[in-house]
Amino acid sequence: MADKLRIGAFASGGGSNLQAIIDGCEDARIDAEVVVLIANKASAGAMERAARHGIATERVRVGKDLTDEFFAADEQHVKLLADYCVDLVVMAGYMRRIGIGVLNAYHHRVMNIHPALLPSFPGAHGQRDAVKKGVKVAGCTVHFADEEFDRGPIIIQAAVPLVAGDDEDALGGRILKQEHRVYPQAVQWFAQGRLTVEDYKVRIEPAAPAFTSEDGVIISPGLDMA
Amino acid sequence: MADKLRIGAFASGGGSNLQAIIDGCEDARIDAEVVVLIANKASAGAMERAARHGIATERVRVGKDLTDEFFAADEQHVKLLADYCVDLVVMAGYMRRIGIGVLNAYHHRVMNIHPALLPSFPGAHGQRDAVKKGVKVAGCTVHFADEEFDRGPIIIQAAVPLVAGDDEDALGGRILKQEHRVYPQAVQWFAQGRLTVEDYKVRIEPAAPAFTSEDGVIISPGLDMA
Repeated sequence: MADKLRIGAFASGGGSNLQAIIDGCEDARIDAEVVVLIANKASAGAMERAARHGIATERVRVGKDLTDEFFAADEQHVKLLADYCVDLVVMAGYMRRIGIGVLNAYHHRVMNIHPALLPSFPGAHGQRDAVKKGVKVAGCTVHFADEEFDRGPIIIQAAVPLVAGDDEDALGGRILKQEHRVYPQAVQWFAQGRLTVEDYKVRIEPAAPAFTSEDGVIISPGLDMA
Repeated sequence: MADKLRIGAFASGGGSNLQAIIDGCEDARIDAEVVVLIANKASAGAMERAARHGIATERVRVGKDLTDEFFAADEQHVKLLADYCVDLVVMAGYMRRIGIGVLNAYHHRVMNIHPALLPSFPGAHGQRDAVKKGVKVAGCTVHFADEEFDRGPIIIQAAVPLVAGDDEDALGGRILKQEHRVYPQAVQWFAQGRLTVEDYKVRIEPAAPAFTSEDGVIISPGLDMA
């Protein structure tokens, strides 16, 4: 078990995606363990979750984008990730930009989840923007992070319908349910060493099922986690 | 039968979406008839299809965007649509911008279909751009046209998976199959007088099914055409 993949998680919020990943690790559907949670707010609900599961927590204040404090935080992040021997960085509702130091140290090893079918609706309000725009299909995306918010090679997406009368919360709930399925799957593919990035595109080898199709849900590629 | 909805179609290409709409009209799944096809190229395959079904055809040369020739074509389009007493304009693979004259005369009465899940991948190469970007879910969108390419209130969308190994043609074929289902449905909702646009969003009343879900396909709202 000594060479299990070591995950460092970043969170700002309640951390339900973090919980899904912790659960996957604990019941061995994901061959990894979350070794540290880094939060920018002491109040982040994710901190409590991590503590409850005996996961180390670190708080790093992150200043405004591209300020001295921001760059100092990036340096501290890099150091912390090294100290904890982290193999994969997982952003779980982390509402800040990830620093270039971390991105360079973890090239194609920083994952993010976003509640929209990227490249549609990047930014802090994916669900709200989808409702406002009046699209009829929405979803979520797990991708490798790059220096832009919500961009980078896409690993897996789930699509769900937007239904007449949906507000941001109703749609958000429908999407979140799928987030909790696709994020653990993406992490497990990484843990299995099946993900490669070429020409900005993610390949999974051996291949996953082409897609998972259920009533009102398409997940692509398909799930093959236990 | 005298008050059947009268459709004016614009096409530049082969016109398989036009064919799907003609077929829907002929077998009475759509309460409308295509009364004129306007093409910008005499060679457009759609011209032959229309002629085969006894539909009047008109060719209007359209110059480069925003040239005198372009504006003259727009004027001629408006006149033709009036001459043929057109109620609804349907763009079926029309690769040109629709003029502001037509848009003003047919406010929320010009439909377009685009082979992507808008707002992702507007422009002439929706399928190719999706493959290039490496998204995992793609699809098509029927919307009311406005003065920007591939924008405007969304009526219906269909989502399909993008599968490992897909090239532009493979994905395009999978999407096109759904285009031929959602475009006739959108036209029929219009013909039934069920579509209203409010705050940039399309409402269907009485409501359609929330969605249609099949293996590897989500259509939202769902189909209720005969």
